[in-house]
Amino acid sequence: MPTIQGTERKTGRLEAFSDAVLAIAITLPLVAIHVPRGQTPGHLAQDYARLGADAAAYAIGATVIGLYWAHSHFSGKIVEKTDHGFNLLTLLFLVAVSAVPLPALPLVEHLRGDADSPAAAAVFCWTLVAPSTLWLIRWIYAERRGLPDPRLTPAYTARLTIKYAVMTAGFWLAALVSLWAWRWGLGITALLVLSYVAPPMSPEFKTGEEPAHELEEADERPRDGD
Amino acid sequence: MPTIQGTERKTGRLEAFSDAVLAIAITLPLVAIHVPRGQTPGHLAQDYARLGADAAAYAIGATVIGLYWAHSHFSGKIVEKTDHGFNLLTLLFLVAVSAVPLPALPLVEHLRGDADSPAAAAVFCWTLVAPSTLWLIRWIYAERRGLPDPRLTPAYTARLTIKYAVMTAGFWLAALVSLWAWRWGLGITALLVLSYVAPPMSPEFKTGEEPAHELEEADERPRDGD
Amino acid sequence: MPTIQGTERKTGRLEAFSDAVLAIAITLPLVAIHVPRGQTPGHLAQDYARLGADAAAYAIGATVIGLYWAHSHFSGKIVEKTDHGFNLLTLLFLVAVSAVPLPALPLVEHLRGDADSPAAAAVFCWTLVAPSTLWLIRWIYAERRGLPDPRLTPAYTARLTIKYAVMTAGFWLAALVSLWAWRWGLGITALLVLSYVAPPMSPEFKTGEEPAHELEEADERPRDGD
Amino acid sequence: MPTIQGTERKTGRLEAFSDAVLAIAITLPLVAIHVPRGQTPGHLAQDYARLGADAAAYAIGATVIGLYWAHSHFSGKIVEKTDHGFNLLTLLFLVAVSAVPLPALPLVEHLRGDADSPAAAAVFCWTLVAPSTLWLIRWIYAERRGLPDPRLTPAYTARLTIKYAVMTAGFWLAALVSLWAWRWGLGITALLVLSYVAPPMSPEFKTGEEPAHELEEADERPRDGD
Repeated sequence: MPTIQGTERKTGRLEAFSDAVLAIAITLPLVAIHVPRGQTPGHLAQDYARLGADAAAYAIGATVIGLYWAHSHFSGKIVEKTDHGFNLLTLLFLVAVSAVPLPALPLVEHLRGDADSPAAAAVFCWTLVAPSTLWLIRWIYAERRGLPDPRLTPAYTARLTIKYAVMTAGFWLAALVSLWAWRWGLGITALLVLSYVAPPMSPEFKTGEEPAHELEEADERPRDGD
Repeated sequence: MPTIQGTERKTGRLEAFSDAVLAIAITLPLVAIHVPRGQTPGHLAQDYARLGADAAAYAIGATVIGLYWAHSHFSGKIVEKTDHGFNLLTLLFLVAVSAVPLPALPLVEHLRGDADSPAAAAVFCWTLVAPSTLWLIRWIYAERRGLPDPRLTPAYTARLTIKYAVMTAGFWLAALVSLWAWRWGLGITALLVLSYVAPPMSPEFKTGEEPAHELEEADERPRDGD
Repeated sequence: MPTIQGTERKTGRLEAFSDAVLAIAITLPLVAIHVPRGQTPGHLAQDYARLGADAAAYAIGATVIGLYWAHSHFSGKIVEKTDHGFNLLTLLFLVAVSAVPLPALPLVEHLRGDADSPAAAAVFCWTLVAPSTLWLIRWIYAERRGLPDPRLTPAYTARLTIKYAVMTAGFWLAALVSLWAWRWGLGITALLVLSYVAPPMSPEFKTGEEPAHELEEADERPRDGD
Repeated sequence: MPTIQGTERKTGRLEAFSDAVLAIAITLPLVAIHVPRGQTPGHLAQDYARLGADAAAYAIGATVIGLYWAHSHFSGKIVEKTDHGFNLLTLLFLVAVSAVPLPALPLVEHLRGDADSPAAAAVFCWTLVAPSTLWLIRWIYAERRGLPDPRLTPAYTARLTIKYAVMTAGFWLAALVSLWAWRWGLGITALLVLSYVAPPMSPEFKTGEEPAHELEEADERPRDGD
């Protein structure tokens, strides 16, 4: 009988697959940067200067994907196991976050304000709604199914849920605002992304169930039968 | 003397390689999506709207490859070891599944029904025959060579064989049907793919040989000599 | 003081990096396959048929890289550790083998024999000389530096050296022959590549030093101090 | 409360992610090499000969990224753990080093000396300043936060800091020189890159705290609570 319990597994391979997808998504936009081949002799320096927008777009995509990677690095520390449902939700998250670099170049090109700025900003803001929303759903699913480290205090996991919900609400708000006032929508989106530079909340463990040392991970905790 | 036994190894590296190939195959189609660069001022929103087909094609490819990844995640849990033959069959499977995103765009573009719809649908259906067939062959090979966890009941592994055989027969049937009635062939193919959303069958172990806990994997089982 | 001994490490990360490079090299050629977008209505089937050469070229590249991956999978089983020199030689091997898919398409397009067949065949044969030669050099370096499992018999490691040297000599011979008789050079090259389908030689261990079971790898052997 | 200590983790996943990014960055430039499709019959050999610049540019990018990979392989051996800040600095380093192949082709095309040589050389030299500088900052951060193996002697880690600082100063000097004398700037840059072929300095451990054997890594050292 197909049951979701029968698919539970340590998080190692899910992390490896996520790492590979994020590594490709962060690097792939380099393919779109076409370095000048010097058609007009003596113009190479100017041709290089015109790559500024491409470089900025690459930086924006790398910032978003890189910060999501850093936080998924942390979530790998506190999630003990995965199952078929968590795998599928992670896949959706990865597919959504991989698309973030696409609208970065139009955004950069229309950042100064022209007839296309509202569309460029709105598409970018809405593109960022998807990964944040899926990250929240993924976490709620994990908690319901008992996938995080059971030694974490309920207060701590509840605070994480609130934090992710607030972030997701923020991205939705920013995207809605971007439809009427693109500069404001974009500003909120940028602030939300940059807030990921702050480290995640330190895990708090139930008294007497603390890990043996700071490097012991959720899926290494002593279990009956080991 | 070259013998296939001498190449047996834990599944870790095979899984890592599979993960990397599938991660690339799922992300690479993004390269083909060319975001509008705003040739005509004020037309960016319309240009973005025209990317619908590209986005749908990306989603189709990601769905097929993602679901195969989720099931290979499970098979890594119940397969204890790999050998040279299993490696080569896995390579064939990976090469076949990586090609799935290619016919997705023509499919989307001709989905409403025109002179090219039969060809677009048939090529897509036949492209999906290959990974399913190789997955079945790979599993039969593994069983013959004793690669799955020996603690699994024969009834369970037999049920897996039947399930994979039925799926493969379904993809062949859908591909054949698509040659005469492309809508029906495509419909059956889509149903078969979406059936992978259901979790795999829970492993059943011989009495007294159950793993110590739900996260113990096939290649971690206690062995003589450990 | 920089010494090569100070850089010795288990092979895990070298294998992970090799897997990633080979996974990308095997999948990347898919980017060059441009599926028809149906410019002329009703011509999609013919447009697809014209992709035969691209598909064959993809298959050739995947065959060579896949077979090298399968053999590097085995070498990971019998090599205990790596060092800075082995890392650099592996990098050279990876860079060389990643370039193999490039000359596959011209080869396929000129396979029937025309004015360009000698050049297409010769470039392909010479491209295959590099990975084989670097594989041999890498192995000889490993043996000199004591990197393989010390429990292997000297007779076994010597047989591996001979096998790799014969293969390399074969690729050089094929490449030289291809300069005068492209069909013969290509034929020898193809035979050499396909000989990799056979499993590697089963490892032979010194009496009393056999691994505890068939899945114990070189870098897991019991060591003083463990 | 968000604290940086709560994000400490073994280095395994950071290494896996780095490996994936570097593997893609080293392989991706192959996409830009367009093998001749023989427009003019009988001209394939000449068309191939014209690929010399592309091949040289691929080799330059692969050399720089490959050597950085080899040294990050070593740093994985002596760094015990990572945290959120080290993750972000590593991301910056990876994003910077992935861009190195881009200016390699203009460099090769203008190497003989023409009106564009100063720009081609200067852009290449400045591109190499970023990874070196970020590598140094990353190391200083690691040392301040106690991330390296605590068994290493302070004299050894101090020597590493000096070595990395000297290298970074060298790349800055080369980039500045390239603005006035491009051949000299390029020459210094090339020498600095090639100096990475030498193995890293052998780790030196405090007396009585030596690892049990040469393959024991920093994150495997015995810890209280194990």
